[in-house]
Amino acid sequence: MKLSLLVLLLVGLALQARSQERKRAREYGIRIGVLPTGVLNAITDVQGVRVGHTTLVQGQEVRTGVTAIVPHAGNVFQQKIPAAVYVGNGFGKLAGSTQVVELGNLETPIVLTNTLSVGTAMKAVVEYVLRQPGNEAVQSVNALVGETNDGGLNDIRGRYITEQHVLAAIEQAQAGPVAEGNVGAGTGTVCFGFKGGIGTASRLLPAKLGGYTVGVLVQTNFGGVLQVNGAPVGQELEQFYLSQQLKDRADGSCMIVVATDAPVDARNLERLAKRAFLGLGKTGGIATNGSGDYIIAFSTHPGLRVPYASTATTQTTTTLTNEAMSPLFLAVIEATEEAIINSLFKAETMQGKQQQRIEALPLDKVLKILKQHHAR
Amino acid sequence: MKLSLLVLLLVGLALQARSQERKRAREYGIRIGVLPTGVLNAITDVQGVRVGHTTLVQGQEVRTGVTAIVPHAGNVFQQKIPAAVYVGNGFGKLAGSTQVVELGNLETPIVLTNTLSVGTAMKAVVEYVLRQPGNEAVQSVNALVGETNDGGLNDIRGRYITEQHVLAAIEQAQAGPVAEGNVGAGTGTVCFGFKGGIGTASRLLPAKLGGYTVGVLVQTNFGGVLQVNGAPVGQELEQFYLSQQLKDRADGSCMIVVATDAPVDARNLERLAKRAFLGLGKTGGIATNGSGDYIIAFSTHPGLRVPYASTATTQTTTTLTNEAMSPLFLAVIEATEEAIINSLFKAETMQGKQQQRIEALPLDKVLKILKQHHAR
Amino acid sequence: MKLSLLVLLLVGLALQARSQERKRAREYGIRIGVLPTGVLNAITDVQGVRVGHTTLVQGQEVRTGVTAIVPHAGNVFQQKIPAAVYVGNGFGKLAGSTQVVELGNLETPIVLTNTLSVGTAMKAVVEYVLRQPGNEAVQSVNALVGETNDGGLNDIRGRYITEQHVLAAIEQAQAGPVAEGNVGAGTGTVCFGFKGGIGTASRLLPAKLGGYTVGVLVQTNFGGVLQVNGAPVGQELEQFYLSQQLKDRADGSCMIVVATDAPVDARNLERLAKRAFLGLGKTGGIATNGSGDYIIAFSTHPGLRVPYASTATTQTTTTLTNEAMSPLFLAVIEATEEAIINSLFKAETMQGKQQQRIEALPLDKVLKILKQHHAR
Amino acid sequence: MKLSLLVLLLVGLALQARSQERKRAREYGIRIGVLPTGVLNAITDVQGVRVGHTTLVQGQEVRTGVTAIVPHAGNVFQQKIPAAVYVGNGFGKLAGSTQVVELGNLETPIVLTNTLSVGTAMKAVVEYVLRQPGNEAVQSVNALVGETNDGGLNDIRGRYITEQHVLAAIEQAQAGPVAEGNVGAGTGTVCFGFKGGIGTASRLLPAKLGGYTVGVLVQTNFGGVLQVNGAPVGQELEQFYLSQQLKDRADGSCMIVVATDAPVDARNLERLAKRAFLGLGKTGGIATNGSGDYIIAFSTHPGLRVPYASTATTQTTTTLTNEAMSPLFLAVIEATEEAIINSLFKAETMQGKQQQRIEALPLDKVLKILKQHHAR
Repeated sequence: MKLSLLVLLLVGLALQARSQERKRAREYGIRIGVLPTGVLNAITDVQGVRVGHTTLVQGQEVRTGVTAIVPHAGNVFQQKIPAAVYVGNGFGKLAGSTQVVELGNLETPIVLTNTLSVGTAMKAVVEYVLRQPGNEAVQSVNALVGETNDGGLNDIRGRYITEQHVLAAIEQAQAGPVAEGNVGAGTGTVCFGFKGGIGTASRLLPAKLGGYTVGVLVQTNFGGVLQVNGAPVGQELEQFYLSQQLKDRADGSCMIVVATDAPVDARNLERLAKRAFLGLGKTGGIATNGSGDYIIAFSTHPGLRVPYASTATTQTTTTLTNEAMSPLFLAVIEATEEAIINSLFKAETMQGKQQQRIEALPLDKVLKILKQHHAR
Repeated sequence: MKLSLLVLLLVGLALQARSQERKRAREYGIRIGVLPTGVLNAITDVQGVRVGHTTLVQGQEVRTGVTAIVPHAGNVFQQKIPAAVYVGNGFGKLAGSTQVVELGNLETPIVLTNTLSVGTAMKAVVEYVLRQPGNEAVQSVNALVGETNDGGLNDIRGRYITEQHVLAAIEQAQAGPVAEGNVGAGTGTVCFGFKGGIGTASRLLPAKLGGYTVGVLVQTNFGGVLQVNGAPVGQELEQFYLSQQLKDRADGSCMIVVATDAPVDARNLERLAKRAFLGLGKTGGIATNGSGDYIIAFSTHPGLRVPYASTATTQTTTTLTNEAMSPLFLAVIEATEEAIINSLFKAETMQGKQQQRIEALPLDKVLKILKQHHAR
Repeated sequence: MKLSLLVLLLVGLALQARSQERKRAREYGIRIGVLPTGVLNAITDVQGVRVGHTTLVQGQEVRTGVTAIVPHAGNVFQQKIPAAVYVGNGFGKLAGSTQVVELGNLETPIVLTNTLSVGTAMKAVVEYVLRQPGNEAVQSVNALVGETNDGGLNDIRGRYITEQHVLAAIEQAQAGPVAEGNVGAGTGTVCFGFKGGIGTASRLLPAKLGGYTVGVLVQTNFGGVLQVNGAPVGQELEQFYLSQQLKDRADGSCMIVVATDAPVDARNLERLAKRAFLGLGKTGGIATNGSGDYIIAFSTHPGLRVPYASTATTQTTTTLTNEAMSPLFLAVIEATEEAIINSLFKAETMQGKQQQRIEALPLDKVLKILKQHHAR
Repeated sequence: MKLSLLVLLLVGLALQARSQERKRAREYGIRIGVLPTGVLNAITDVQGVRVGHTTLVQGQEVRTGVTAIVPHAGNVFQQKIPAAVYVGNGFGKLAGSTQVVELGNLETPIVLTNTLSVGTAMKAVVEYVLRQPGNEAVQSVNALVGETNDGGLNDIRGRYITEQHVLAAIEQAQAGPVAEGNVGAGTGTVCFGFKGGIGTASRLLPAKLGGYTVGVLVQTNFGGVLQVNGAPVGQELEQFYLSQQLKDRADGSCMIVVATDAPVDARNLERLAKRAFLGLGKTGGIATNGSGDYIIAFSTHPGLRVPYASTATTQTTTTLTNEAMSPLFLAVIEATEEAIINSLFKAETMQGKQQQRIEALPLDKVLKILKQHHAR
């Protein structure tokens, strides 16, 4: 098992190296929205948030993986965080949502993977929590596991994801730049008929509005009529939902994870999550029937931690008022739109099971279209 | 009362005449989306749907009105229709939503007006239903009344809307082209810092996808970062949420009414309604805290009528499958986007209470921007 | 107008006097649940909560009224309070629910009345708020108005409730004992086939659990299979839903208002509201299709006020943890059950429109049944 | 593996044999509600529904299991059924709920198990579906898996449930009488401080109301103030939530599965599910913070099957009207109440991990109390 894990990591590193060739949208001068990004333009701009990928590319048939988002450096079960889930379209297998909605908090890392591996990922998250120092008495764990279906390129029925793959993604999660494109849970995904994957972006509010950061990470596997920064790329490329070329192939899903360091309670996190759905819409996503579109939002603000082992019956918190949420709404829409575009920009052409081949978004053409449309 | 009503109508007609000068987006060559429009590009393309406006422009202070959407020509209470409500952002006074959600049907015309006149409009709708022939024994009426706040231009505290105004809007509702801009419930509204109002649009699905029509009518009074067919109009005009010029003025609301002749049951109408919210997002709307953004969707399909006076315990219906909904999702997103843009294109500069003046969207500049961006 | 109001008040007082003859459940030794009551065993045990009734009994045909619950002595619009709405069954016309749900707060008194008078009540609440000192600049008011249908005894189509009636109920609201039975919004209601009305009760938590009070007020107009403190009263009296005598007459509705002085945020108030529905179930209510069963819950805790005019972007609050809610859940279930039973115990036989006559719950028989069942 | 399975089955059979000694509530003359039961007074009275248990009692530490409810004899994935989920209290790990809610249908057997074994059960359900003949091309499976926490008696951290245990429960599911008490997913559960477990009951509507059957199966692991058919058993035994003896031990959960042969669509199934929560309330359940109380409802009516492999864009169905639902509401409340009581009547005293011992409900005392209260 150790050896295969090593191979896996090497494959992962190699993939990352190759994907350096394609740049992120902003590196091509594309400026989505009006707010500035964080330093990394990534979910990891939200302090303490770490991301880990396990990428599985084996033989002709295996194109899948796991992405873990760890909300803070401590023991998340012992120091739960405010969280919310918004269901854009519920044709998906997201596990753990009802407890987050009911209690308004999150107690585990968030794991993304493929549709048929949610059970495996839950088992791994439970294992991870049970064995964490300090959790020796824990008897109940709410694993939050999302997925999209990579069954076009990946032999999804083979269920190649193991608990070790999931644990590796969690344990190797790190701060800093986030690998995008064909990595982790985005390894085998398809978006707007092009190769999708993992994408990320962030926004930084002006100091007078609190100076808060909103970071987004997406796993893109959905369809519609692609727009890049407003430009009708899907139409120009003649590849869009209901077009001759693509026909009705628009299903799939989009998992969206939103992090913020702003002190936002669960109710307002749900409102924040709902706005991320608008960001998906701005890329041309239409949330088709078969699309499992979920947004998970959480706040890392240290003052809002919910201690597991506490006998206190009250908690004192300082949170944003309803009125103060609007700038964050703008931020999350922009970051979600850009994270989705980044996933397309970074994902490379991939060939997978049964010789299926999904082309990467043709950046040269796209950039030309954007130029014509003054969209860069 | 008769006289003032006459004056009102004349004012309304005059306004309509003037607003002919500004054209709808499509008349300037702007093509939003990939689907064709209905004949009128209006909610009234859905057969049987009628729209009526009462426009109140009196003195310097009164800039308000009522818009009624009547779903079919019969007695709507006796022949209820499948309907759903989706709450984009619930900072609003929409009355009647819980019954629509619970029972999955609508039993009255839909009325839109200003925030402080919802009670008056409810009274009028109840009156309308009680006095309709055949409703002599009716003792319960669920009036569905939405609103946005026109208190920037209108002396909203004066509550100038009367029950007669509401009844007039319902009774004069008609098929055919729908007046847009500063009419009815859109008389005093503001959108992206420009004059908003009533807008409408429609989409027609290809015959092989059922040939269904989706029509949308909006009352626009919200903000964000305006995009017209993808072009960053708000940014180019330096007028957008959080900009120097506009600052945080983005609140307000958007009422969206969706009609379709497709045989869609209440559950799928809710899903359809939710997609309309994405259309709002595509115009740059961000659903700020203070925005009451609601979508009401209904099906006029004759086979789905819910009879009030019936002893039958079962009902046989033929409805679209979940899978067949996706093309309608695309249609409603496009129609909503275009209806909002139409409301801005048709609304003229208006001066109202306390010399407040809201400029119309400067079409010459906008068209120039769109040209630069190849967005027309 | 003054005169009729006086008449009204006299009628109200007279009714109260007569209804003294019937006592509340607890006065007959009936002990529902395990927790102690507050001093008054009424919603007014929650400090600051006031209740006002306008009772309309005119001629043979008018049997209706208004009940107002004013959450605190200050300007509720300026000092909003955390609140939630839970929809047990949405066949009703509750106005104002979506804003409460979205923002998590309440900004007006709560008004209960009959089904066709919700518009009138909304108008009155708006009027009340607009004219309150300090609200001169207010342009948006979310009136929370609930109803049940008293059309069995009352000429509901006549719409006899005026704005003055509503304002009177609000303005005359007072602390202290709450009139129950055929008063206010309960004047013409029917419950389990017997005369229903207004009822109230409260529970007091032990000091070690915070010493909090939960108060409930109900407007009972629903059906099912009546149980009083567990005893099968409906069955013994051979009057229950689907019985020979009552058949399918179980529709109607139940409005439930829950107040607490515990520091509970909106999310946990929603959970509290949901438990009140279980209290309805314990009386034998089954929430038939036609029943509009809503629960409104709010916290009067001074530390949780949401100021309207504030430029602060954050708010610091001390609220109960999720874990600390459970005792309140028990309290609200018990108080709801007892409030419903009180409404039946206090309501007297009434004759109304078209000689319709609804018998009061026959207390002598009921007490006998309870004795047999050791339920008192 | 085969051997241990055999042992398991023998243990299961032995347990069943022993539990014959305790009878179901109705066998002691307890008549809950006013409607007649089905022939078996079990969920299996709904034609086609089968139930299977895997019971794990090993050494001192393992007290857990799996219960599977198979909705019809065909391939459920290929012939999906209308379904709904209602969240009473979401502190639980129910997997698969959002897809059921979104699409209104169910595509797998329902599996109940312990909290930390949901991932394992999901894997098994996926495996079961993928290998079913006819599902060779299936790439997406929505496993619906519920749980309660048996960690009081069971070494839940040991995660003894294997995929084979889950598959055995599904594959051995059968029609006919359903084993209750300490079996399957109820093996180690605790209810009202007594030994809980699996319970079931059913109701049959009169022919004039359609002659439909409603069946309920519960996994009881929750608390409150126990009432048996209205009698205050918890109080009389001095064992209830907040009592000296039990203190705050009321957490746990309740999974409720509702089946009906009535032609009910997803929207009305959700309403039916919500009423089951009232049945829980009638037993004295209070849905404490830590209780994961979920209701899953489905219709087995053959005319409502949703075919997986179909190119049809419409579906014609005959379903109950809203009005016709009320009798089913009464039925599900009664059946849920009785199913919970049956789980307590049938469950025997059990000793488990760390010498923990949970006493069975003392039937002799209970029957005496019921007699005093004329509740049998």
